[in-house]
Parts: sequence; C-alpha cells; structure tokens
Amino acid sequence: MKLREFQYYLKEKNLDAAFLVHPDINITYFTQYLPSFAFLLITPKKAELYLTSLDKKPQLSHITTKIMTKHWKKAVANTHYRRFGINKESLTIAYFTQLKKLWPKARFVDVSHQLEELRRRKTTLEIEKIQRACSITSRAMAELLRELPKRNLKTEQDVAFFLEKNIRDQGAELAFPTIAALGRNAAVPHHKTSTAPLKRGFLVLDFGAKYQYYCADMTRTIFIGTPTLQEKKLYQLLLRSQQEAIQSLAKGIPFQQLDAQVRQRLGKYSHYFTHSLGHGIGVEVHEGPRFSDQRQKIQPQEVFTIEPGIYLPGKLGIRIEDTVVFTTKTKILTTFPKELRCVKL
Amino acid sequence: MKLREFQYYLKEKNLDAAFLVHPDINITYFTQYLPSFAFLLITPKKAELYLTSLDKKPQLSHITTKIMTKHWKKAVANTHYRRFGINKESLTIAYFTQLKKLWPKARFVDVSHQLEELRRRKTTLEIEKIQRACSITSRAMAELLRELPKRNLKTEQDVAFFLEKNIRDQGAELAFPTIAALGRNAAVPHHKTSTAPLKRGFLVLDFGAKYQYYCADMTRTIFIGTPTLQEKKLYQLLLRSQQEAIQSLAKGIPFQQLDAQVRQRLGKYSHYFTHSLGHGIGVEVHEGPRFSDQRQKIQPQEVFTIEPGIYLPGKLGIRIEDTVVFTTKTKILTTFPKELRCVKL
Repeated sequence: MKLREFQYYLKEKNLDAAFLVHPDINITYFTQYLPSFAFLLITPKKAELYLTSLDKKPQLSHITTKIMTKHWKKAVANTHYRRFGINKESLTIAYFTQLKKLWPKARFVDVSHQLEELRRRKTTLEIEKIQRACSITSRAMAELLRELPKRNLKTEQDVAFFLEKNIRDQGAELAFPTIAALGRNAAVPHHKTSTAPLKRGFLVLDFGAKYQYYCADMTRTIFIGTPTLQEKKLYQLLLRSQQEAIQSLAKGIPFQQLDAQVRQRLGKYSHYFTHSLGHGIGVEVHEGPRFSDQRQKIQPQEVFTIEPGIYLPGKLGIRIEDTVVFTTKTKILTTFPKELRCVKL
Repeated sequence: MKLREFQYYLKEKNLDAAFLVHPDINITYFTQYLPSFAFLLITPKKAELYLTSLDKKPQLSHITTKIMTKHWKKAVANTHYRRFGINKESLTIAYFTQLKKLWPKARFVDVSHQLEELRRRKTTLEIEKIQRACSITSRAMAELLRELPKRNLKTEQDVAFFLEKNIRDQGAELAFPTIAALGRNAAVPHHKTSTAPLKRGFLVLDFGAKYQYYCADMTRTIFIGTPTLQEKKLYQLLLRSQQEAIQSLAKGIPFQQLDAQVRQRLGKYSHYFTHSLGHGIGVEVHEGPRFSDQRQKIQPQEVFTIEPGIYLPGKLGIRIEDTVVFTTKTKILTTFPKELRCVKL
C-alpha cells in the first residue's frame, strides 16, 4: 500500500533508503503479506523483501523477494546507503545497535511519523478489505443471536468460541482475542473471557475478524434475561451518545472534541467511561488516528472506531462500538443493529 | 518466576532498578499474568506492576499492582533511580528516548542477556506447566487420529481447526497458529494452512497449546493413503535422526554438535534440512537456548524442541518435533507416538 508515496517521501527527504526490521507491521502494510521473519528495504526506486527459506516466496508487485540463505547481516551487508530511514516505534535498541555496526557511516532518520500518517489515510482497496472484515464480524454476531436461544452455549467462553469459529469458517482470521464478559465481569473493559456461566445481565461482546491483513473491531452489548427499566435507560443513554458522536463526524473536527461531547452526554456516568472514545484501525487493531492526541483531527479516508462504554465496578459494564470510515461523509462499516437485544434465560 | 534471583542480580550489578516496558514478554514471565498494557519496575527489594484501568487488578505474590490513572510518565515520574536495567532486545528506540528524557541523570544498562539466561533454566513449576501444555497437545493429536477416518475433515484448514478447537476445549490457548501442510505444501516449513483438500501424501501438523502462559510445540507427520516403500524409508531416516539426537542429549553438549550429528545422519538429505534443529521454549515459543549460537551447551533445567525436517521443493515435506526437558536426564514431554501413522483415503 502506498509504496510509491513512501518512496516519493524518501526522495523528498533526501533519504537513500528505509530499512524495516521484523516484526514491524509496516512490512505487512507495504507487502500485503505476513512472513515469519523478514526485512524490507525501500529506496526511492526499488523495494526488496528479505525472507528466510521457512516461508513461501510470494509474488508481489513492485517488490523483489530475496531468500536469505546466510545470516541476515550478510544478506544486506552489500547495501551501501548513507541516509537510512528507520521506524523508531518498532525498532529495538538491540537491532539498532547492529544496524549502526553494519553501516557505521550511515545516518539514521526516524520515519515512524510518516509511516503512521501514510497508514491513517486508507486507500479504496484498504477500505474494501476493512469493510469485508466488518461484514464477516457482523454476520458472526447475527449467527450468535440465532444460536443463543437454543441454549447450547453455556459460558462466556462458549460464546467467544462460537463467534471465533464462525469468523474462521467465513475464511477470515481473528483480529484479536474475543472478549465475552457477563454482568460484573464486563466492568473490566479488557476482561479475560472465562468459563463464567451465562446468567441474567448485560453481556459485552468485543471481537473482530481480520480479512487479508485488515482488522474489524466491533462491540455489542446484549441482555441475557429481561432488563429493568433502569438498565434499559442506561443502555439507551450510551447508545445515544455513540450515535450522536457518529453523527458529529466531520472533516477537521478534533477527536478530543468528540470525546468531550460524549462525556458531556453521559453526564454523571462519564466518570465511569474510563477509556478513549476510539482508535484508528487497519493492519493493526490500534493505529492512527490517535484520539488521545489533542492535535489530531478527522481527515478524509480515515477508518476508526467509536466506542463509548460505562463501567460500574462490581456491577456491570456496557460498551457499543462501530468501525466507521470517513471519506467526504461518514459510513458505518459495522452493519449489525444497535438496539438492545434481549435473549430469554 | 525467579524474581528474587533477578533482584539479587540487580543488587550484585549495582543496579537500582530494572524497568520493563510493554509488550516485553518478561513482564509475563515475572508476573505470570498478561496485561493489555503494562510496565514492570523491579528493584532489589520490591517489584511494581503498572497497569491501566482496562485490566483487572491481579493478586500477585511479591509484586505490588498500581493502576495508572494518568499518563504512564506521570505514574512513574517519581521513581528516582540512577542506574536502570533495560531490555534492549525488546525496548524500542522511541520508548528508550522517552525514558532518557524522564530520567536524564540515569544510566541505562542492558539486562537482556541476564533475562534470557534466567528464562533458560526452568523452575519445577515452569516445567510442570510446559508438561501440561504438551499433554494437551498430544491429546489433541490423538483425538484428530480418531476423527480423520470419519472423513468429516476435508481440508488442511479443517484439520487445523479441529486441533485448535480441541486444545481450547481442554482449557488451553494456542501457542501459535497451527500449520497443517499436505504434500508439496509441506516443502515450505512455515506453510500457511490453506483450504487445500486432503489427498494422498504426507501431512505435516505443527501446533501447540499454551497453558498458563507456557507453550508446547509439537510436529507430527502422518500419511494420507498408503506410502510407497521409499516414502516409508524417508520417514524412518528422519525419525531415527530425531530419536538419536534425543538420545545424545547430555549436560555440556553443544547444541551445534547435535545439529551436526543429525545432518550427518541425514546424509544427502541434509541439504534439504533447511532450518535449525530446535529452539528453547517457555513463555515464548522461541527463546533460549539458541541452537544457532555456537557457544551454547545443554544445561540442567532446560526445555527445548528437537525437530529435524526434510523438505523436497515442489514434492513433499516431513518434520518430527518433540518438546523435551533436560534436568539430570532427558524427558520427552511430547508423549504422542512417532511411528508413521497412515490414514486411509
């Protein structure tokens, strides 16, 4: 993705090459391939992927693949460049020390910011892949709601397995381990799915498919049993805050402004909304734009999540999350409905 | 694990503290817990785990847990130490730059080597966990061999899913994505499991459970259909080389010597054995001891794999892998039998 744009950047910055070191996710970003181990060398004119013989040699457009038969240093030692771009957000000190020894005369320049910026603005193909991942995810949720009344799924883990199997049966991978959190378990946003039996209460399901290296991220909260009026109201409050945030999306709006708007809407419950409103998503589940960065504003071609939550310690947790794309207007990629669904006990 | 031993090391090296930064696997090693995001501060006298409110606060022995309500820098800014241990194999340049700004007077010393050495020598509890992971893995393989004759599994992916579901049903996680590689697909050691239909040929299955953060790694090669005499002979050659390597394990033997012994045994096929003989295993699937390091020798309490393979490009691949522990003697933790199993077409 955007290899030529990055090559143009290198040229503009007078960089001879960028050298990306495993396990830098940007290797997958540029190659649209996930090797067991690899280096990616990009110059303004060419790109070379160095692999071990453990992996199948892929057919890539605009990128030459080379199998390293010896130690990686020997494979790349004949590359003589003076000004190297490196990714400081991924490169370890140990590798950096080795690179400096390998090319003692080189100057190393951080290109992490540029990589993040490139990845923020998705291409049409990237958006299509994320949309597909989101469709697969929504479909798994729909299948779960058909399955739950049959009462074969007894625990949080059963529910998580069902979703994960469904995603994989649809030909996708998992973007991250599924969170299934019932009742007070859901008061911990990143609850580790357990063998807790399904019983009355809110059930938070946070999961996503990964399709051709692109992630979806979705949360739905359903109710097992019959909710009280107060529980329904709490859900409605959260839902409205989420919907209003999505309606407010527009070019140039700071992410922090959206975040503040949701907190204001939640009123006294804003104290129990203990995480960020959302995050960019692509080849990584969490990437740019960064909602915590006060300077970042909504730009065209960005894909991100909107996911307010309310977490009452020891009592309950609820969260509603969509993956959305903003081009010239907003499109919600997570198609599964958001009204509160109840499953009879 | 071995927190006290590491604290003693810090004291001995005159280090005031070690600061481990997410996602350093050593955080899981010391805490026996996997947070979504964390820092671990270890001094000769105490250990503090800094978490976000996304995770449940765990009850840990000898480690204090602190929830970061503000930015992590604010949470740890009041720690005033002069000599810090860092893990250069995991710490990124970006984080290191931030640490240097946060503690401008501090001196940073690499402790990665000590961390690797600590982890190489497993405690009894660690060995028990790996043994449990290996038992779960062997059991999944046994279940697969009962399932295959029923002919419900049609593709590589079906076989991989069956193994993974079985492992998870046994209460474990996956140590890594399962490789199921049939026929010439298996000539690529890290073949990506596909929807290739099961048909006559060798089927390589490389998979493992993770039990309480500890990994198992096992490969078995079975035959779909009836092998020719030559195919049987090739398998026998590989099996003998693997068994002899395990029989040769003894304190002080260099891993490279074992590797050379296997290659000699494989004769003309050694050219087609394109990876290392094995690797250490623990909280990571690949950790110390490093077979590629000429200086490393077998020490008591080490757990590692022995996994020779033969890969004939475009034709076939076979690999046999056990996880073994060496204490004063060798114990094979992968209990599933190794004679060639054939499944009728």
